[in-house]
Amino acid sequence: MNQVRPQAQPALGEEIEARYAATRALTEALVAPLSDADATIQSMEDASPAKWHLAHTTWFWETFLLRDRLDGYRLYDEDWPFVFNSYYEAEGERIARFSRGMLSRPTLDEIRAWRAHVDAAMAPLFAREELAPLIELGISHEQQHQELLLTDIKHGLFQNPLGAAMWDRRPAAARPQDEGWHEHPGGIARIGHQADGFAFDNEGPAHRVLLEPFALSSRLVTNGEWAEFIADGGYETASLWLSDGWAWVRENAISAPLYWRDDENFTHCGWHKRDADAPVTHISYYEADAFATWAGHRLPTEFEWEAIARGQDGQAQAHDPYGGNQLDDAGPPLPRGGEGLFGDCWQFTRSAYLPYPRFRPAAGAVGEYNGKFMSGQFVLKGASCATARGHSRASYRNFFYPHQRWQFTGLRLAKDI
Amino acid sequence: MNQVRPQAQPALGEEIEARYAATRALTEALVAPLSDADATIQSMEDASPAKWHLAHTTWFWETFLLRDRLDGYRLYDEDWPFVFNSYYEAEGERIARFSRGMLSRPTLDEIRAWRAHVDAAMAPLFAREELAPLIELGISHEQQHQELLLTDIKHGLFQNPLGAAMWDRRPAAARPQDEGWHEHPGGIARIGHQADGFAFDNEGPAHRVLLEPFALSSRLVTNGEWAEFIADGGYETASLWLSDGWAWVRENAISAPLYWRDDENFTHCGWHKRDADAPVTHISYYEADAFATWAGHRLPTEFEWEAIARGQDGQAQAHDPYGGNQLDDAGPPLPRGGEGLFGDCWQFTRSAYLPYPRFRPAAGAVGEYNGKFMSGQFVLKGASCATARGHSRASYRNFFYPHQRWQFTGLRLAKDI
Amino acid sequence: MNQVRPQAQPALGEEIEARYAATRALTEALVAPLSDADATIQSMEDASPAKWHLAHTTWFWETFLLRDRLDGYRLYDEDWPFVFNSYYEAEGERIARFSRGMLSRPTLDEIRAWRAHVDAAMAPLFAREELAPLIELGISHEQQHQELLLTDIKHGLFQNPLGAAMWDRRPAAARPQDEGWHEHPGGIARIGHQADGFAFDNEGPAHRVLLEPFALSSRLVTNGEWAEFIADGGYETASLWLSDGWAWVRENAISAPLYWRDDENFTHCGWHKRDADAPVTHISYYEADAFATWAGHRLPTEFEWEAIARGQDGQAQAHDPYGGNQLDDAGPPLPRGGEGLFGDCWQFTRSAYLPYPRFRPAAGAVGEYNGKFMSGQFVLKGASCATARGHSRASYRNFFYPHQRWQFTGLRLAKDI
Amino acid sequence: MNQVRPQAQPALGEEIEARYAATRALTEALVAPLSDADATIQSMEDASPAKWHLAHTTWFWETFLLRDRLDGYRLYDEDWPFVFNSYYEAEGERIARFSRGMLSRPTLDEIRAWRAHVDAAMAPLFAREELAPLIELGISHEQQHQELLLTDIKHGLFQNPLGAAMWDRRPAAARPQDEGWHEHPGGIARIGHQADGFAFDNEGPAHRVLLEPFALSSRLVTNGEWAEFIADGGYETASLWLSDGWAWVRENAISAPLYWRDDENFTHCGWHKRDADAPVTHISYYEADAFATWAGHRLPTEFEWEAIARGQDGQAQAHDPYGGNQLDDAGPPLPRGGEGLFGDCWQFTRSAYLPYPRFRPAAGAVGEYNGKFMSGQFVLKGASCATARGHSRASYRNFFYPHQRWQFTGLRLAKDI
Repeated sequence: MNQVRPQAQPALGEEIEARYAATRALTEALVAPLSDADATIQSMEDASPAKWHLAHTTWFWETFLLRDRLDGYRLYDEDWPFVFNSYYEAEGERIARFSRGMLSRPTLDEIRAWRAHVDAAMAPLFAREELAPLIELGISHEQQHQELLLTDIKHGLFQNPLGAAMWDRRPAAARPQDEGWHEHPGGIARIGHQADGFAFDNEGPAHRVLLEPFALSSRLVTNGEWAEFIADGGYETASLWLSDGWAWVRENAISAPLYWRDDENFTHCGWHKRDADAPVTHISYYEADAFATWAGHRLPTEFEWEAIARGQDGQAQAHDPYGGNQLDDAGPPLPRGGEGLFGDCWQFTRSAYLPYPRFRPAAGAVGEYNGKFMSGQFVLKGASCATARGHSRASYRNFFYPHQRWQFTGLRLAKDI
Repeated sequence: MNQVRPQAQPALGEEIEARYAATRALTEALVAPLSDADATIQSMEDASPAKWHLAHTTWFWETFLLRDRLDGYRLYDEDWPFVFNSYYEAEGERIARFSRGMLSRPTLDEIRAWRAHVDAAMAPLFAREELAPLIELGISHEQQHQELLLTDIKHGLFQNPLGAAMWDRRPAAARPQDEGWHEHPGGIARIGHQADGFAFDNEGPAHRVLLEPFALSSRLVTNGEWAEFIADGGYETASLWLSDGWAWVRENAISAPLYWRDDENFTHCGWHKRDADAPVTHISYYEADAFATWAGHRLPTEFEWEAIARGQDGQAQAHDPYGGNQLDDAGPPLPRGGEGLFGDCWQFTRSAYLPYPRFRPAAGAVGEYNGKFMSGQFVLKGASCATARGHSRASYRNFFYPHQRWQFTGLRLAKDI
Repeated sequence: MNQVRPQAQPALGEEIEARYAATRALTEALVAPLSDADATIQSMEDASPAKWHLAHTTWFWETFLLRDRLDGYRLYDEDWPFVFNSYYEAEGERIARFSRGMLSRPTLDEIRAWRAHVDAAMAPLFAREELAPLIELGISHEQQHQELLLTDIKHGLFQNPLGAAMWDRRPAAARPQDEGWHEHPGGIARIGHQADGFAFDNEGPAHRVLLEPFALSSRLVTNGEWAEFIADGGYETASLWLSDGWAWVRENAISAPLYWRDDENFTHCGWHKRDADAPVTHISYYEADAFATWAGHRLPTEFEWEAIARGQDGQAQAHDPYGGNQLDDAGPPLPRGGEGLFGDCWQFTRSAYLPYPRFRPAAGAVGEYNGKFMSGQFVLKGASCATARGHSRASYRNFFYPHQRWQFTGLRLAKDI
Repeated sequence: MNQVRPQAQPALGEEIEARYAATRALTEALVAPLSDADATIQSMEDASPAKWHLAHTTWFWETFLLRDRLDGYRLYDEDWPFVFNSYYEAEGERIARFSRGMLSRPTLDEIRAWRAHVDAAMAPLFAREELAPLIELGISHEQQHQELLLTDIKHGLFQNPLGAAMWDRRPAAARPQDEGWHEHPGGIARIGHQADGFAFDNEGPAHRVLLEPFALSSRLVTNGEWAEFIADGGYETASLWLSDGWAWVRENAISAPLYWRDDENFTHCGWHKRDADAPVTHISYYEADAFATWAGHRLPTEFEWEAIARGQDGQAQAHDPYGGNQLDDAGPPLPRGGEGLFGDCWQFTRSAYLPYPRFRPAAGAVGEYNGKFMSGQFVLKGASCATARGHSRASYRNFFYPHQRWQFTGLRLAKDI
């Protein structure tokens, strides 16, 4: 990667190879604190073992790049696609999702060896310009799994009554933020990915949306505010909740965000005293919506959020222009508050995750990446402390079901003006 | 209704009283073919017994009009609100939804007596102008339950392996329709209820939406076309389906619309040979979406549908300007095809059921009518053969979960142009 | 029955015809207070609608007597066996058990007409001596369903929050009983049906069992004693319970017998103040066992119970020699305490329901009557206030799963001596 | 253990200490082929991770011997009892059973260190004669968990579609056995533990039982015979099955014993060709009963089995007099057929697992060992290839629910004579 290159042309290949290498290295650094056993457990159907994330991302490269695009490549192990394919129907049958936690074999080291093998085999492909979009997709895909790996292992360690921790570090105190509002006059806004550079298919086509005047809070709702919501009977007041949300609260005896216990929060560093100034995280859409109702405000639409993120001229910078608290090395992801729209936690919008006008999924198996999930989920914007820095952007659309809350999910209020 | 009216003033009160009376009478006419036992069964949690619909609509009048607005009114039976409240949290605890089928008491005749009692007690209220909006709501509410009553009893009779029928009539043959497209140039469209007259709170506020150019089919998808979809392996081809839809197909071994068996359909008149020219009905959102994908088109948004319904000048007539096949007496609802956008079946849109900009639910218990259901459901437009004529309009938003299909649900294709 | 009989021979046929007629009449008298709707509801998978019991008992006669033994008999309705067969695999497919509550058709009157038709058709069969055993089986079968009909409709009416009652009568006060013990010196006891007269196949073959010395209480445990058990924390003390029982208590939040509410019990006559002197009923095996442990005693084995019932000479009278409170007309079954071993409630034994030595089920479909249920259930002895008088006997083996308690189940303590 | 001992007296202490050491060593040898990840997975609620078995057996010693009987002993880790208590209610709350698979921490090595610590701490207790019964219980307890460890890890590895194996060995061919019958003339038999030496409380009190004449097969049913049962439609013939068994077959689509696939069986050594002469294993009670019915025979009672095992004089040797194929080192347990009644597989009896006359559980937490499981289960006799040699005896009563089959369970036929 660092060798001297006299020609100008190969620059793109080099740049992408460097990002490939950095991404692959970060994934491995994230699992460095984990034992084979830690990396094997699966705590619920939504989550996957850390080991599986390591293998699945590698399966992605081996399948869509090496197998499909590199002449003569032979699969490292012909039986592994069955266990490491996630949901690509076009790639055939696969292990039941909630059986991933039974994979004590292959070992973590065997998967690391596979990773090294695939990385070596990838070398000749970076120079092939026509593959750049697919490689970009693979990098973004692996970054998404870095975040899932972190939230999944957090959920797994949380099951352990002995208070298992992944890193031994004390969370830094959060910075208190003043209330403020980003106002927007309404009118036609440009939405969706429109610049150069990689984006997922679900971020386009770029199109125009008509907005009413509104304001978006300049800061995230905090743990301290959430404690007030609880103290005011938020979880016992049916009128604050969506009907499905109230049913969810009652059936699951929900009375606080996930990972709350007394005055402590569970983190990748074990149990720690809750910081009232830190953004609240690990809430469901139902909780976010109920809080907003209680607060006399509402959640923003995904279009409102994006319009603010793009700013006056409508030209968002390619990547998270507002800085913030995101993942840039293999340390523990810990929300501590920041000034930008990106970082700390994904922010629920009241927009359902649906196709943009004229959206068409890509052909082939990678067409299953996004489009087929467009029912029943809500869009989240921004990025979290577990999102690789550089991964998100103004047009980025994350999505989860309204009851899910094992991600670093939080909220930023909006209001009509 | 047709009588001569010399005086100007009493018109509003009389007109509304007449519609009240007609609505109440139609509800009772619908259950005339049912025995007490027929009216008692509950086939699934989504459905309610016919008897319960009769009672619940009466509870609505007794609670929100008589109890709350008529001095000195005493409840007919103080224990009945517990069993006949549907989902109004503000009205207190109530019987578990899936226990409604245990109500062999009160009898159908006892409920009819209650209805008569309430109808008599309502007399003085029609002249009070300030109550008109609430009475309009009650009439629309009862019309909605007329439709549910019909679809619920159909589902109940369907459970009976002996082929129970409610009416003894042979369905008329459907009229074949030519393919055609309503084209729309895109641009800003006015959406939502904006005229005089009653509308549910979820139909407003009126606002503007920016549309891309599109076309909406002039006709509904038919049983014959659906048979082609099946013959072409539609239910076995994962790539046509949303991910949740595919899981639903597999878990429930779905291979046809509800009420299909060999070359017959179950109807309120028992099993009858399926009519290839009739609109397909009793499909889920997942099926509608998969069919549209298979057909190379897509579902419309609720905004596109409404824009076509409103026509050139954007001024839809208050009620179903396109005629069509809707409920106007107590005969069996049977889809047989029609030329308008309204009637035969509700049409799935790809729009999630969410609040319009600046939407606020009404204060009090009736505020629970619509707003709290705004997650996880999809909007359907139009009206069905089980919808009371005059009930629907261009701004009407029906909504169901994507797996539900016991309503008369169908689809009308859309495409980008 | 009371007519003069000069000839000796025809006596058997006449006697059995009279019992047939009386049994059929009692079944119909039991449902006289029920509406068609009452007779249609099914409150849980274990229970069946009253209407279904009326029909199923008739199906039994039509299938095994008329269809199989009467030349030229044609089924009343060829589709009905599918819905009114209970569990006879040899008789083909049938409606799912928990769909019986969807049978609003045929109506109660239609089933009564079928009953009359079958009763008339049966006339020529009583004189055929070779059919007597099968007719006896049919009578006993219908008596069993009389009891199930009563316990099932009780459970159904109980679901109604309005406190529906089947009879309008006030339960008589129970007679207090003194504690006493029937002692037995142990040794070899004759067990099983050994006299003339009908018995189910599971009551034989008669055989010998070796007993240790023991004593059996002369009376049933009462509601008053059960209240002491509750007051002493019986339902919160794990050490009193079988492991499966404790799991059942916790999962279902059990804290009292079925049909208890404050100081009232639900009966066929509605809610009434609980009588402390009456035998406790509607308890599960788990509860019976926990109570016995708490009381410092134990449950008897089925052999101990039968040995006491047979008395000194080992020759129990054919039918319930001890009198007691059993069903002999169509009044409400109400436990009020009695001196015999039979009546008021079935009494749990600690014996699993298993085959006696050399047991073989009968050939053909009626061989499915008892044998195939010999796993996972416990034997109950005696009879209840809902058991037709004359139905039970010392060798009678009733059986239920350890969690079931919608029957009139109670307990009689035993101890080692 | 190997030190010179001049005195005669300490013999008992030495002998028991040697068995303690051998048992503890065998447990650890069994897990030697497993990685920490292998030892962490839990494949179903019935099974526990290998790691958990290692820890739970150690918890037993630490709790009931060291904590309760050794002055001044302090718990190795005060939080561990919460996670390593199995089901002893008297020992307080504990982790949910199906969360044991989340224990990636403590590591396998940390648990081994705990084992060593406890082993060292136990040293002074062996000489205390009054503790011998409790130590014997602890040894037998750990032997039971050796067997569970083996069957649980087999079930865990079986989930892995990659065919994970624990040992790399080829199963030896089974020895074909001729059919023969052990006949018994009936009469009074002595049942239950009556000699010196350790036995579980559920094996007593010794008592007499009256038997009818019968014969017990001299050999186990084989895979080859089971294949005939399948070929003859055994799994599709309702009349062969208990009612609960037939429901289980249909709901779970059962068509062969567990671990059968085509002509192979899954073993601790991976997938291997099935040996027709080897005893069939991994069947449920329902299957055993259906096979016996199909074969025209029946299952023995536990009393019949024991009477044959005790032989002519009624004096069974303390431990498995018939030799056979049992666990005596840390090799893979593989059924290969043998001549004795013990070994290869546990043999289902038709006896429900119930208390013997005058049975009383021990006082305190160890009283929960057996008694509280006496409902819903069936007794199995003999021993399996995964049972530690010396662990079983004629009076031994193993017990499982009728649907369970992940143990080495098989059958030996009986018949009336």
